[in-house]
Amino acid sequence: MQAPTEVAELFSEYKKDIDAGLLEVFNAFADIEMYQQLAYFMGFRDERLLPQEEYGGKRFRSSLMLMLADFYGSRSSARDAALSLELFHNFTLIHDDIVDGDTYRRGRPTVWKLFGTPHAINSGDAQFIVATEVLARDSGTTSSALQQFMLAKYRTVIEGQYYDFTYTDLPLGHPEVTEAACLQMNAHKTTALVVAATEGAGIATGQSEKEQTLLREYGEYLGSAYQICDDVVSIWGTSGQTGKRAYGDLLEQKKTIPILRTLPMLSEEQRAVVIEIFNKDTEVTEAEAETVADILDETTVYDDVRATIDEYANAAKERARSLALPKEKQEVLASIVDALLPDIKAV
Amino acid sequence: MQAPTEVAELFSEYKKDIDAGLLEVFNAFADIEMYQQLAYFMGFRDERLLPQEEYGGKRFRSSLMLMLADFYGSRSSARDAALSLELFHNFTLIHDDIVDGDTYRRGRPTVWKLFGTPHAINSGDAQFIVATEVLARDSGTTSSALQQFMLAKYRTVIEGQYYDFTYTDLPLGHPEVTEAACLQMNAHKTTALVVAATEGAGIATGQSEKEQTLLREYGEYLGSAYQICDDVVSIWGTSGQTGKRAYGDLLEQKKTIPILRTLPMLSEEQRAVVIEIFNKDTEVTEAEAETVADILDETTVYDDVRATIDEYANAAKERARSLALPKEKQEVLASIVDALLPDIKAV
Repeated sequence: MQAPTEVAELFSEYKKDIDAGLLEVFNAFADIEMYQQLAYFMGFRDERLLPQEEYGGKRFRSSLMLMLADFYGSRSSARDAALSLELFHNFTLIHDDIVDGDTYRRGRPTVWKLFGTPHAINSGDAQFIVATEVLARDSGTTSSALQQFMLAKYRTVIEGQYYDFTYTDLPLGHPEVTEAACLQMNAHKTTALVVAATEGAGIATGQSEKEQTLLREYGEYLGSAYQICDDVVSIWGTSGQTGKRAYGDLLEQKKTIPILRTLPMLSEEQRAVVIEIFNKDTEVTEAEAETVADILDETTVYDDVRATIDEYANAAKERARSLALPKEKQEVLASIVDALLPDIKAV
Repeated sequence: MQAPTEVAELFSEYKKDIDAGLLEVFNAFADIEMYQQLAYFMGFRDERLLPQEEYGGKRFRSSLMLMLADFYGSRSSARDAALSLELFHNFTLIHDDIVDGDTYRRGRPTVWKLFGTPHAINSGDAQFIVATEVLARDSGTTSSALQQFMLAKYRTVIEGQYYDFTYTDLPLGHPEVTEAACLQMNAHKTTALVVAATEGAGIATGQSEKEQTLLREYGEYLGSAYQICDDVVSIWGTSGQTGKRAYGDLLEQKKTIPILRTLPMLSEEQRAVVIEIFNKDTEVTEAEAETVADILDETTVYDDVRATIDEYANAAKERARSLALPKEKQEVLASIVDALLPDIKAV
């Protein structure tokens, strides 16, 4: 997730807390390279596995969880769960990078690229165990209910990865490649951990059922909107380095919401072109990606998808403003929604 | 672990209990193939993912844990931890099979072979989460102390896999390829889960520090002896199907205890032959494996290693007979040691 500066500012205090907690966890490990590989991925060591001072990991999910618990007056009750959430999230990325064959993440080589697939599988496994140990530790304040809730959400993410496999294997145009299937995958793979942060904070601080429902829905709408916004950026966004459009998801033939929405808007001829490019076995060229992008731009799909994002964003803000929190805290939560979901065409 | 029939008989009642508990866990899952892949590996489904009635998984670690807790009068206190142990052990095998490129286990195709590496990584991850969920579940009786103990042991196994990578990467003859390094790897990779079973049963049933030390040592000696016995079988054992010696570990160039013990016993010429075969980049032929086996048989290494096994076995039995349990239960635990460690040359 590429969060704008404002979000970084809002979370700054909590991110510091999370980073300190994570560093404490990593410092307690035996001096074997397996843990240093993980410290590298978490941003605490460089490629030569030497300690590094400053690293721009966002800790979005964990910071959000800690902030919410703090707003409810009991930051410490969610601290271990937030650390666990951050560790788990990064564990999934280590394994995802193997599966997707991704060589770079956050501008640095991935674990499998640097240390080989066996190490990436195994060190990833270690990171997941650590995520559960933090949740179960004695010094911690994680209730049994919160622990079970977090583990269930973790398993939801793994189910989401499974849905991703089966979804990715199907060609564009297949009757099972629907917006519903795509949303189900996103809900499991992405939104689950945002909900873990928001609803988890409610469980940690002992909120009412009603409040927890609001927190869950805040997380669901925020997470869903963010995912679609990410899809939009990966089609219409420009690369920060070149200033040119990067077409990331088009080059990777990702069957995201904008693509699915576009199909029924197209002429038969246009649809055939898009489907051919999306289903070809060989690598998509930049020219082909541009062809798809041009076809998209002949439709109203950008505005259409943007309207969905806005709808979700408004629903998230509405939930934020209904929480049993002081007005200014509600507004912080609402501002997070806007900061995370920039309208790239309006910029 | 290939256990003789007697062990299967001793464990029969507990294995049934474990199998029923595991099946209950698997039956509660959503109807998606990811869980069916795991049910396949656990022996509850066949290669076409159809349910199967009977399967010969041994459930050694979990049965041992359940038996010990039962001997102490509180089987239920360790049941969830035993189920978790079995789930975790099988999770490690799913990932190990990817890393080792093994295509068959227990006479059936491995998960990655049948469903591909991405699924094997991801479904394995799911199985591990389930192992932790069982440990944390509400209906369960797993104490916080037991939970932490089990998770720590799980992480020890992953450290063991890391040691295995670094150990395997070094050539035979390298100064770091020592019996101590091999024993350290085994203690982490294999013995840790036997200790999880024995000491874990003590924690579950609230035994004294002294009793827990005995249980830990019983597990350590049993696990260590078993691993060395397994090494012996994989060099001197005959294939059940062909009746001929299979040379498993020799063909795989595994630098096990018998090999390390042999080296100093050899003439320079013999040592050069063994080292060359163990360090060659191409596949070891059956003739080469036989050459190594013949060199081993010119030394006293079999008797030497067997003496170590007997020493460990006696230490394990001595611990069993010191436990605060009725005589006949002590003898059951002692008989497990003998049943697990057959002297293949004496048969």
